[in-house]
Amino acid sequence: MTITKKIPVGVLGATGSVGQKFIQLLEGHPFFELSEIAASDRSAGKKYKDAVNWFQSTPMPAAIAGLTVKSCDDTFSSPVLFSGLDASVAGEIESKLAARGHFVASNSKNHRWDPDVPLLVPEVNPDHVELVKTQSYNGGGILTNPNCSTIGLVIALKPLLDAFGLEAVNVVTMQALSGAGYPGVSSLDIIDNVVPFIGGEEEKLENEPKKIFGTLQNGGITLADLKISAQTNRVAVIDGHTEAVQIKLKNKASVEDILKAWENFSSEPQRLALPYAPTKPIYYFAEQKYPQPRLHRNLDKGMAVSIGRLRPCPLFDYKFIVLSHNTVLGAAGGSILGAELLVAHGLLK
Amino acid sequence: MTITKKIPVGVLGATGSVGQKFIQLLEGHPFFELSEIAASDRSAGKKYKDAVNWFQSTPMPAAIAGLTVKSCDDTFSSPVLFSGLDASVAGEIESKLAARGHFVASNSKNHRWDPDVPLLVPEVNPDHVELVKTQSYNGGGILTNPNCSTIGLVIALKPLLDAFGLEAVNVVTMQALSGAGYPGVSSLDIIDNVVPFIGGEEEKLENEPKKIFGTLQNGGITLADLKISAQTNRVAVIDGHTEAVQIKLKNKASVEDILKAWENFSSEPQRLALPYAPTKPIYYFAEQKYPQPRLHRNLDKGMAVSIGRLRPCPLFDYKFIVLSHNTVLGAAGGSILGAELLVAHGLLK
Amino acid sequence: MTITKKIPVGVLGATGSVGQKFIQLLEGHPFFELSEIAASDRSAGKKYKDAVNWFQSTPMPAAIAGLTVKSCDDTFSSPVLFSGLDASVAGEIESKLAARGHFVASNSKNHRWDPDVPLLVPEVNPDHVELVKTQSYNGGGILTNPNCSTIGLVIALKPLLDAFGLEAVNVVTMQALSGAGYPGVSSLDIIDNVVPFIGGEEEKLENEPKKIFGTLQNGGITLADLKISAQTNRVAVIDGHTEAVQIKLKNKASVEDILKAWENFSSEPQRLALPYAPTKPIYYFAEQKYPQPRLHRNLDKGMAVSIGRLRPCPLFDYKFIVLSHNTVLGAAGGSILGAELLVAHGLLK
Amino acid sequence: MTITKKIPVGVLGATGSVGQKFIQLLEGHPFFELSEIAASDRSAGKKYKDAVNWFQSTPMPAAIAGLTVKSCDDTFSSPVLFSGLDASVAGEIESKLAARGHFVASNSKNHRWDPDVPLLVPEVNPDHVELVKTQSYNGGGILTNPNCSTIGLVIALKPLLDAFGLEAVNVVTMQALSGAGYPGVSSLDIIDNVVPFIGGEEEKLENEPKKIFGTLQNGGITLADLKISAQTNRVAVIDGHTEAVQIKLKNKASVEDILKAWENFSSEPQRLALPYAPTKPIYYFAEQKYPQPRLHRNLDKGMAVSIGRLRPCPLFDYKFIVLSHNTVLGAAGGSILGAELLVAHGLLK
Repeated sequence: MTITKKIPVGVLGATGSVGQKFIQLLEGHPFFELSEIAASDRSAGKKYKDAVNWFQSTPMPAAIAGLTVKSCDDTFSSPVLFSGLDASVAGEIESKLAARGHFVASNSKNHRWDPDVPLLVPEVNPDHVELVKTQSYNGGGILTNPNCSTIGLVIALKPLLDAFGLEAVNVVTMQALSGAGYPGVSSLDIIDNVVPFIGGEEEKLENEPKKIFGTLQNGGITLADLKISAQTNRVAVIDGHTEAVQIKLKNKASVEDILKAWENFSSEPQRLALPYAPTKPIYYFAEQKYPQPRLHRNLDKGMAVSIGRLRPCPLFDYKFIVLSHNTVLGAAGGSILGAELLVAHGLLK
Repeated sequence: MTITKKIPVGVLGATGSVGQKFIQLLEGHPFFELSEIAASDRSAGKKYKDAVNWFQSTPMPAAIAGLTVKSCDDTFSSPVLFSGLDASVAGEIESKLAARGHFVASNSKNHRWDPDVPLLVPEVNPDHVELVKTQSYNGGGILTNPNCSTIGLVIALKPLLDAFGLEAVNVVTMQALSGAGYPGVSSLDIIDNVVPFIGGEEEKLENEPKKIFGTLQNGGITLADLKISAQTNRVAVIDGHTEAVQIKLKNKASVEDILKAWENFSSEPQRLALPYAPTKPIYYFAEQKYPQPRLHRNLDKGMAVSIGRLRPCPLFDYKFIVLSHNTVLGAAGGSILGAELLVAHGLLK
Repeated sequence: MTITKKIPVGVLGATGSVGQKFIQLLEGHPFFELSEIAASDRSAGKKYKDAVNWFQSTPMPAAIAGLTVKSCDDTFSSPVLFSGLDASVAGEIESKLAARGHFVASNSKNHRWDPDVPLLVPEVNPDHVELVKTQSYNGGGILTNPNCSTIGLVIALKPLLDAFGLEAVNVVTMQALSGAGYPGVSSLDIIDNVVPFIGGEEEKLENEPKKIFGTLQNGGITLADLKISAQTNRVAVIDGHTEAVQIKLKNKASVEDILKAWENFSSEPQRLALPYAPTKPIYYFAEQKYPQPRLHRNLDKGMAVSIGRLRPCPLFDYKFIVLSHNTVLGAAGGSILGAELLVAHGLLK
Repeated sequence: MTITKKIPVGVLGATGSVGQKFIQLLEGHPFFELSEIAASDRSAGKKYKDAVNWFQSTPMPAAIAGLTVKSCDDTFSSPVLFSGLDASVAGEIESKLAARGHFVASNSKNHRWDPDVPLLVPEVNPDHVELVKTQSYNGGGILTNPNCSTIGLVIALKPLLDAFGLEAVNVVTMQALSGAGYPGVSSLDIIDNVVPFIGGEEEKLENEPKKIFGTLQNGGITLADLKISAQTNRVAVIDGHTEAVQIKLKNKASVEDILKAWENFSSEPQRLALPYAPTKPIYYFAEQKYPQPRLHRNLDKGMAVSIGRLRPCPLFDYKFIVLSHNTVLGAAGGSILGAELLVAHGLLK
């Protein structure tokens, strides 16, 4: 899919961890032209390069370095606003901007459970994007991304749900530090250490898949019936969440059946050839020691899910390892792909 | 318990990771006097300080530095030999030395499943030590430790098994680097990374508890009936295995019931006041972010198990975190405590 | 040296990194009885265990856990107050408490350059402690510790200064994370990384040795004449500063001369057998790969300096590596030893 | 510069750390077509994907995965062979292959000091490439790269040497783990640690710049007259060597003079627009906390040198920080650029 004229977009929370990732990933985007950036009042009024502690491993895009940072209370001219705002402020600001006619693509938890807001993973529930039509925002709207630890999991599960049905999912995560934002986790808490707790994370992982796998009918989402248990841990990894997953299927499937379901999985973003869609949503590794975050998190521009170690489980049917990039696929990249889908569906007025 | 005259002991595999830990922990031991050390032929004949790459964080005991390293083929005069030998050579050497009248306390997998060899965790199955009487070694015998990831788990489970019965156990580990020996895991494989595979480890974790929880009758062990599923991962931690555990009980128990079972747990090593026994085998932490390997692995001289985050589970009955020191409780310290129990039972001829 | 009745002491900034270390090290101290703790207003009024994020690797002393945290504005009854306060508030609070008759042992930079305040390293300039007599505080006084990166360096240099004279010192540090306090350095800034800058640190390292090596005469310190250049870097180490040092001597000395000077070095804390003094202030390692922070930082209860790799230098006379524990010798332990010296000199009224 | 027909090349030591980097960087190269790979006898005869433990963070090039690994004793058809062989075997193999008519671009130390072999850093001494004409290899030849810690340093120094003259250089390194190959440094030796010793490294850093900065005359290199002192340390960084540098200049220069010399530096690879040449050889960062390995090692495809913190020095004239990618600029990338220069000079027969 190509478009004839780039759509101006803005980034809210532009100095934070997710905000920086938005700026990095939007550079040279074929649909979107980054033209406005906003952050907290502390940064507002400064040039971006003076307001930000840029810690990406590619240089700050030159065109953005000189932009003046707006306050989130300012008015914006871009139809689409990507939000990396913190949950403590995101809810209200995002509502207000949607009401002013902007489409806001949010990474925060605040609106995820609004009945008329899609909790969108473009490879998994692309039809849910239509839910924005039911929103009463005046020409604008809100799209949300699920939690970064949810996204990789639901992409890995989707082909199995479709082919064999899912009864129960057990997941234990080993999550990257960038998921906690910046400065986030103190180095004294994580070097030579594991922190076996991430506030609110297990609840998200246990509930969000039910909405994502839910069915859109009569202008609302009926939650999927699925039991999930999650344990979430922080480990000394910069980017890339690793998840040890166990599943109980509704219908029998062999190892080969499952590998085939993953191998053949392709979805609407691939069919539409959306710019930020991975070529393949899922890569399976036959080597027992794979996938690993440092080696595979950037696969297919950080938008693919890596899976390995599929084997039978004495308690469930199968167990396996899922890895995905938490700030690309799991945050900024996922939001951008969502906005591309919105454009492709003609939902951007 | 006190003894009147120290028993001479030796360490096999004295230059390796577990061997060094034996030497460190045996310094000043009230029962045992370290008098012989042996290693591979490459080290034999050298002074210990010249043969070893000592990487413990306390200095090498001065009395040991000047000892000449023996070959494992030499003859030994110590009644007790602690073995940190690698599985590739341990089986045969340990059998031979037991046949020559030594009691060998092994950390290797080779003899763990011999029907007449105790797979001993002194707090869990102290009665199994009596199994050595059935061994046909000429005055000697073999004791084994389970895998380092098994020991912490079975101590955490034992009070629950006794009070409520156990139907199923699910465990996902985040294991320390010292468990792989030295040089073991390459730094290039683990910094900013997780390795979701440890060869042979899951099988050990799924099977060893069945023997440890088994019943000693008619001179043999009847395996316990218990379903276990394990997923084992390596993380960037020096010492201390963290395990995310889920359990299904046979009988109902409240959170308070379980906390009480852990709190009150005490076993034969405590009653006998064995020198290397921890004061309390189990410590429970109420703070959600605990236990953590760097903070709690050395609790009660590295011989205690730390537990935290007990909470109901949507799929099992409960989930919680278990932490233990893999080279102290999980290897050298566990072996020393086992040998102390052997002495206390009067089984050392 | 022994004393008949323990002296009550307090800790200011008790919830911080250095404050916690004070509490850990004062447990069971033969001179001092920890009886009062104070912190910021946010913590004041709470029980210590509820106010602190305890991250030491030994459990919080039970006797302290239940103490109520005071505000630094409260009145104190202890003759000695150990201060781990941050430089942003330390100056004023410490002056006020000294004026009220307390001896304050400070780890902050604020009073280090007051002409009547000793910048004390007990093994290096024990006579400087007498400077407190010139202070006009009403019965109280102020002692200061130098920067954590300065202490190890000056102890390593002291025997060489005495025996051969020093003309120039060049030092490049690789400093531990605990030196930045808690939460301090973000994990995202240091994993798989080096930060080649620590604000204000190079100036301290280039200037403090001049006062420490200065001579006490006519009730004041005459600064030593010594050229120093410092470059300070942060690396992914929890505790223990490593320093690559180069020196130009005034008089010729062979490698053997220098090793002998270090080997024989002993000072007033050793002669007085002060409780927190290391047995030997300096340990030299012949192995080329030593010293290393993880292996040697805790040597002699964390109060010793480890040195290695002495060799001729093409630009200076010699180069070598110095390692010391930055929060024990370099902060809390150094302060406690300083206070012990104050007591031994009969300066505590 | 463009060429009309790609030149077939081979990689020796293709399974090792540097060998993998060659394979990664040669993918899609405009001059060179990777057509042969060789490794030790253990790997020979296998498909590359079965012989290698691929640990790069981009996938193995599909075209290479199926190539059969040759033995280094086999015959080769490629005019250019890139060698990532270990020093224990490189010397002899490289000589033999040069004698058979291949141009060997080596990363090993063995031939660096051969009088007729260029020790080439294309931005620093491009004229030295002509030295291959004096080699008596039958149509072939040998080019060498200096040590990975030398390359970044000499590029940083070159514009200063040219503009102001250099009298003395002092350097203390904090080097990455990939410099030690794979498996290289044990994780137990480097997590929460620094190793203040790298065998042979200081000698290389103190001597190689003298040949690189030497003058080519009468078919030989006259060494530069320059005093250098080096101290080399290993830190917990995957890629990117950080170096704390101090310099004494022959002629006075202000901070601005030096910044200008770096800013304007451009050399033959830039003029020839060689494919692997960085756009700018040197980037200077004004932020005090930069450069940092994780953020800047990949700048300008990993071929640039990052510099920061230029400031006066109390002992030398100036001090500053230099950072470069040790396996790209410092090894495989440097070799490829050297071979490009060889082609551009028409020296490849």
